[in-house]
Amino acid sequence: MTYVSNDPADFAEDALAGFCDLHADTVRQVPGGAVRRARPARPKVAVLPGGGSGHYPAFYGIIGPGFADGAVSGNLFTSPSAQDACSVALAAHSGAGVVFTYGNYAGDVMNFGLATERLRARGIEAENVIVTDDIASARTTAERRGIAGDFTVFKVMGAAAEEGMDLGEVVRVGRKANDVTRTIGTAFAGCTFPGAASPLFTVPDGQMGLGLGIHGEPGLRDVPKPSARALGQDFVARLLAEKPDGAGDRVAVLLNGLGSVKHEELFVLWTDVARLLRESGHTLVLPEVGELVTSLDMAGVSLTVTWLDDELERLWTAPAWTPAFRRGSITAADTGAGTEELAETETAGFAEASAESRRLAESVLSGLRVVRKALHEAEAELGEIDAVAGDGDHGRGMVRGIDAAVAGAETACEAGAGAGDCLAAAGDEWAARAGGTSGVLWGAGLRAAGEVIGAESGTIDAFAAVTAFADRIISLGGAEPGDKTLVDALVPFRERLAAGSWSSAAETAEQAARRTADLVPRKGRARPLAERSVGTPDPGAVSLALIARAIGEFSRGERA
Amino acid sequence: MTYVSNDPADFAEDALAGFCDLHADTVRQVPGGAVRRARPARPKVAVLPGGGSGHYPAFYGIIGPGFADGAVSGNLFTSPSAQDACSVALAAHSGAGVVFTYGNYAGDVMNFGLATERLRARGIEAENVIVTDDIASARTTAERRGIAGDFTVFKVMGAAAEEGMDLGEVVRVGRKANDVTRTIGTAFAGCTFPGAASPLFTVPDGQMGLGLGIHGEPGLRDVPKPSARALGQDFVARLLAEKPDGAGDRVAVLLNGLGSVKHEELFVLWTDVARLLRESGHTLVLPEVGELVTSLDMAGVSLTVTWLDDELERLWTAPAWTPAFRRGSITAADTGAGTEELAETETAGFAEASAESRRLAESVLSGLRVVRKALHEAEAELGEIDAVAGDGDHGRGMVRGIDAAVAGAETACEAGAGAGDCLAAAGDEWAARAGGTSGVLWGAGLRAAGEVIGAESGTIDAFAAVTAFADRIISLGGAEPGDKTLVDALVPFRERLAAGSWSSAAETAEQAARRTADLVPRKGRARPLAERSVGTPDPGAVSLALIARAIGEFSRGERA
Repeated sequence: MTYVSNDPADFAEDALAGFCDLHADTVRQVPGGAVRRARPARPKVAVLPGGGSGHYPAFYGIIGPGFADGAVSGNLFTSPSAQDACSVALAAHSGAGVVFTYGNYAGDVMNFGLATERLRARGIEAENVIVTDDIASARTTAERRGIAGDFTVFKVMGAAAEEGMDLGEVVRVGRKANDVTRTIGTAFAGCTFPGAASPLFTVPDGQMGLGLGIHGEPGLRDVPKPSARALGQDFVARLLAEKPDGAGDRVAVLLNGLGSVKHEELFVLWTDVARLLRESGHTLVLPEVGELVTSLDMAGVSLTVTWLDDELERLWTAPAWTPAFRRGSITAADTGAGTEELAETETAGFAEASAESRRLAESVLSGLRVVRKALHEAEAELGEIDAVAGDGDHGRGMVRGIDAAVAGAETACEAGAGAGDCLAAAGDEWAARAGGTSGVLWGAGLRAAGEVIGAESGTIDAFAAVTAFADRIISLGGAEPGDKTLVDALVPFRERLAAGSWSSAAETAEQAARRTADLVPRKGRARPLAERSVGTPDPGAVSLALIARAIGEFSRGERA
Repeated sequence: MTYVSNDPADFAEDALAGFCDLHADTVRQVPGGAVRRARPARPKVAVLPGGGSGHYPAFYGIIGPGFADGAVSGNLFTSPSAQDACSVALAAHSGAGVVFTYGNYAGDVMNFGLATERLRARGIEAENVIVTDDIASARTTAERRGIAGDFTVFKVMGAAAEEGMDLGEVVRVGRKANDVTRTIGTAFAGCTFPGAASPLFTVPDGQMGLGLGIHGEPGLRDVPKPSARALGQDFVARLLAEKPDGAGDRVAVLLNGLGSVKHEELFVLWTDVARLLRESGHTLVLPEVGELVTSLDMAGVSLTVTWLDDELERLWTAPAWTPAFRRGSITAADTGAGTEELAETETAGFAEASAESRRLAESVLSGLRVVRKALHEAEAELGEIDAVAGDGDHGRGMVRGIDAAVAGAETACEAGAGAGDCLAAAGDEWAARAGGTSGVLWGAGLRAAGEVIGAESGTIDAFAAVTAFADRIISLGGAEPGDKTLVDALVPFRERLAAGSWSSAAETAEQAARRTADLVPRKGRARPLAERSVGTPDPGAVSLALIARAIGEFSRGERA
């Protein structure tokens, strides 16, 4: 339950603003997140954790000397956009490169990946360290989600950058820390979004959801709620069974409360956890018990162990001074920080375009407006389709995306942008405002199509643009035909377009979208509801077909 | 809801033990609480906050340089005993005296007051600073309860002691801080004890209990839950209306979450609170937003303002380094602390008694066993009487008390104690184990009776002993005849005893106890249920009459 808020839609933004007001002496709010206020005296690697909001102190609570240089902060439980990540990176960059670090979730991987590409295109060195500590989420390390182990990995990287390690070295120690970090968590009750009438997920009374993810992702199974002692035994046994090959006997330990489990409860649990870890021959190095990575008011607890070598121990025990976590003695002066503020985020301009291309940009804008009308009309229907197996927000997300895209294209046209830049700008705004995986994909796809069209062109090669759009979506999203995604409509659409007209291709897309009703989704958060989705088409595929038809009708009108 | 525990009866003790294990490098557990591990290099005033458990980080989370020297920790929401307070004080005392500091609750006032007397009797300087910041709890400052304002007052005193101020000065700044500290709180939902099936108190859905106390004590009234903005406006307006005469415009501010209100919510609320305080001309000096004084999982929030003068600002902003609160740069080395551990708590021995007095002590022990039998038989009945207007634990508390008293008297007899010491020891154990206000009163009353009897006496002057017992209970508890307490049976009992036999006096006590059914309680937590209690006698008065009868029957048996 959330008790204190203004407009629930603004909750994440309001919380970030309040935090930045409170810590204005050390933290500065920028679009997409926050950065340290003090500029480093000499260039250092900027360590930038990030992800959705609702996990305080992750991610902006740990900005400060010895820890993060900034944090990229999305809406509640929603990945920040690539634009957010770029904005924070540009504000935090001091000349030695940036590293984004985050838990392994599809939206984050896509958005931070896109941001990394864009920064590199601007000549800024950028890397990613993805945390995969949740042993309950998958068998193989690479597929695992990132949960409270975030904290250890971020801390080690923050200390490494503060020591003066270069980008490659910071990435190396971050990945090394992730390789030896294991977490097991459990949930007793779900969390509730501000303004929501019911929890995002629930756990049956008297049970606990062992391994349940911090956003309600599937865990191992529900079991009767054990005593603290039995819970500690289970946690420790599961982590010791995952001890990395060649690991030593010195460990960093985090006993983490997810939101509604109080400190006193964590202390009760700690006694057995500590005893069992010591009895197994481990030395506990500066263990932490508290709220380190939360999930709003979720009632849950997790235990993280990081097996330390000398280097990781030095970095784990190094001083840090942040709003939510302070260790040892360190001040801004110790880190050689100056008082000068970091430069404001740069804003991208548009290349000067030919008159021909500017006319074509107006046409692109008109086409987007037609799509906007079609999506607004279909919003309710798309929501209903999505609600069968998902959270019912697909129509809302598409409408937010196209509204932002039209606004972005209008701004670009007013600034004299050509057709390609206009479409790319529309894509950027879509990605920044729509939220969710589909927002990233549509945004990135439109940008890719815009780049193929180019800033100067006076005509559009529709097949080349659609191909760029499709390639981007397929490579970024990783879905294959048959996975019940928009790719199931996109691939036949492009194939038909190669051989025929736009209108016949749009018809093909519609047929393909309808056929997705027979499919079962392959993986992901929708999995528990997979059976429910049979008989209902994929909402993303339906949206694609609907947009293809709208563009076809608009094109015929233009030609007439 | 509490999710993680072993035996719920041991919850508070288990939590303290886990905390002390986690922070074993800086904190040492002692009977009744915890103290700093490092011994001060030179004598300093020991600042000792305390109270019931369930309020972490209050009270043991703030032990460390610049803050508390130790903390006295009772059971959940239950005052620690005077013995607990003495134990912690003896462990923390370094030669410059101790000051207990705590919120204004009857049990705490009695127990810390008793502990202060005992320490002074041992030649240790001891003082008390009582926090009274809750503006919703009474009109006059002296009658108000202490809530989150504890934090500012304790912090100021901790800094003062660290600076080297003497006991009188530390007390002076503590009282000055309390005089300019105001808090308003609200509750959205009650908290639930470990193992309990239902919350300790509730707030109607969609409402909030404005001014509701942190243990569910009556507040101002229930109102519809407002927006964060409206809540901030209401809080700030109420505190500004209470601005102390002559106060300046620099303030320490605490925005405190009680347990289930998350950090993100506090940040949302902070924006308006900060703006309104600034607009009213105040400068916010190192404000704190977080969980500072909690109440298990209570959903609530409070706002505290302390108006600062130069001295208070210096002490508020001084460095501190504790498990739960760290400010500035300070280490054990800065405070001149040595590595030597503090002495273990002293244990009191017994004076060598005459054979005559030792025989009389055996008789006292036998009498206590008879009372034990009577109370065990009456436990259920006493519980039922108490449940009409209270929480139904009176029978349980009396049984715990007499069991402990018998055990204490047995130990004393085995150690060769005389009759007076035996009864005093029984009282100490009763107070230490029974919990609640009645536990303190019975314990202190029995000790007073024992002191009158003396360590060497071979006979007991029953009237003198009962008079000492009654005087102690009346002066300590502050109740008057007609308040519907055990005093309503005790006073007539003593009067009758002055003129007649024990058995006639016991009969008088029984009649008086029955007549308490016509009374309405004057004040205290039972007030909202006052009407319900009419027609039911006071359980404390009934207990007293029952014990008087049991002792009378035992005495007749002894004489026969």
